Amino acid sequence: MHDIRKIDLQEGILDENDHIAEHVREHMTDHGILVVNEMGAPGVGKTTTLKNIFRHMTLKPYVIEGDIESDLDTVDLKNLGVEAHQINTYGACHLDAPMIEHATHHIPFDEPGIMFIENIGNLVCPAEFTIGEHVLMLVSTVTEGSDKPYKYPLAFEKADLIILNKVDLIPYLDFDEDFYMKGIRALNKDAPVFKVSGRTGEGFEEVAAWLEERANKLEVHEHHHEHHDHHHHDKN
Amino acid sequence: MHDIRKIDLQEGILDENDHIAEHVREHMTDHGILVVNEMGAPGVGKTTTLKNIFRHMTLKPYVIEGDIESDLDTVDLKNLGVEAHQINTYGACHLDAPMIEHATHHIPFDEPGIMFIENIGNLVCPAEFTIGEHVLMLVSTVTEGSDKPYKYPLAFEKADLIILNKVDLIPYLDFDEDFYMKGIRALNKDAPVFKVSGRTGEGFEEVAAWLEERANKLEVHEHHHEHHDHHHHDKN
Repeated sequence: MHDIRKIDLQEGILDENDHIAEHVREHMTDHGILVVNEMGAPGVGKTTTLKNIFRHMTLKPYVIEGDIESDLDTVDLKNLGVEAHQINTYGACHLDAPMIEHATHHIPFDEPGIMFIENIGNLVCPAEFTIGEHVLMLVSTVTEGSDKPYKYPLAFEKADLIILNKVDLIPYLDFDEDFYMKGIRALNKDAPVFKVSGRTGEGFEEVAAWLEERANKLEVHEHHHEHHDHHHHDKN
Repeated sequence: MHDIRKIDLQEGILDENDHIAEHVREHMTDHGILVVNEMGAPGVGKTTTLKNIFRHMTLKPYVIEGDIESDLDTVDLKNLGVEAHQINTYGACHLDAPMIEHATHHIPFDEPGIMFIENIGNLVCPAEFTIGEHVLMLVSTVTEGSDKPYKYPLAFEKADLIILNKVDLIPYLDFDEDFYMKGIRALNKDAPVFKVSGRTGEGFEEVAAWLEERANKLEVHEHHHEHHDHHHHDKN
């Protein structure tokens, strides 16, 4: 009994979430903002990854920080002069689109750029909820072990961009890169995998370049999108 | 509207879960089996921790392996001759008590010992659901960073035993042990913290000794418990 009611309710929540996510995505596209949903397990270096990407960006970064509790990372980013806004979920295991819609009302998008949304540290639940992103950026690490794509397939399957962090520690680990890549490619043929180190800073220039290229394509796409939208409105 | 219905339903599920968890706990106590709920983020070394504990155990180990998908760890453990049983949740972000109750029917508990239940790799959701454990064993690592107790407080608050794994990597990291311990002690005054390395094997002898001492106390407690239970049954 519980299960059936649970599933029905869950589907209702997902429909509503997807609807609001689409609204967020359109709204951000209109502002010339590429939205990046940054996912990964606790401690993979999600905030460190952002800081390293910012060093190589020419576009303006915006950040929404998702945490169950604490604002340690937001304080850290604000100290660097980054436009950062905190969401605390107090127990909820993932961000959802209504949270992001609400947060965007408090962010002054004064110029085009990239909005990074750091999701809750969790390799399971966030993968089930779109939050209005154009790009799903998954952060994984060599310290987690090479079997992660096999054990947590949904996140790897949905990712548009995969980061393999902490590669400076490879000499001290038994990380099997072939097994890791084989697991990814069984799920996801296209996502580029960038090897980086938050400690040495290596590899992030390429990540920033990939994201900025996507952001620049978004501007081109935006005009098409607006154009189509007008037609769409006419029909209604 | 969704939120209110969601909360009511969630409370109903928790009540039913807690009821079944209590049943599992009593059933296992009657068999002289200490139940350990092993929690931790993906890649912290939960299976490696079990394998290292087994090397120092005199009691018989039983294992239930929880994974979203795959049976890599169960195959690994069975190859070592350990009584291991797989649960795949296919998306669910935590184990619950009904899953454990079902699994225990398939395990021949032919002698007293310790049953380790490796939960889904997730530092958020599993902390909200008891699954019939006597001991909640949390595995964390130096590679995750020293801020984890501040960001994921529930798991650290509820833990009976905390393992800090991968200490062999400390020389290559900026792990702040004082900050980590201060975060734990603000939430949890009593849980012992064992520093271990799955790579070198150090520290696990003490973990095994702590668990076996608890298991041996369980046998003493069992008799009291049965005694009380009979009174209880009489009243019904």
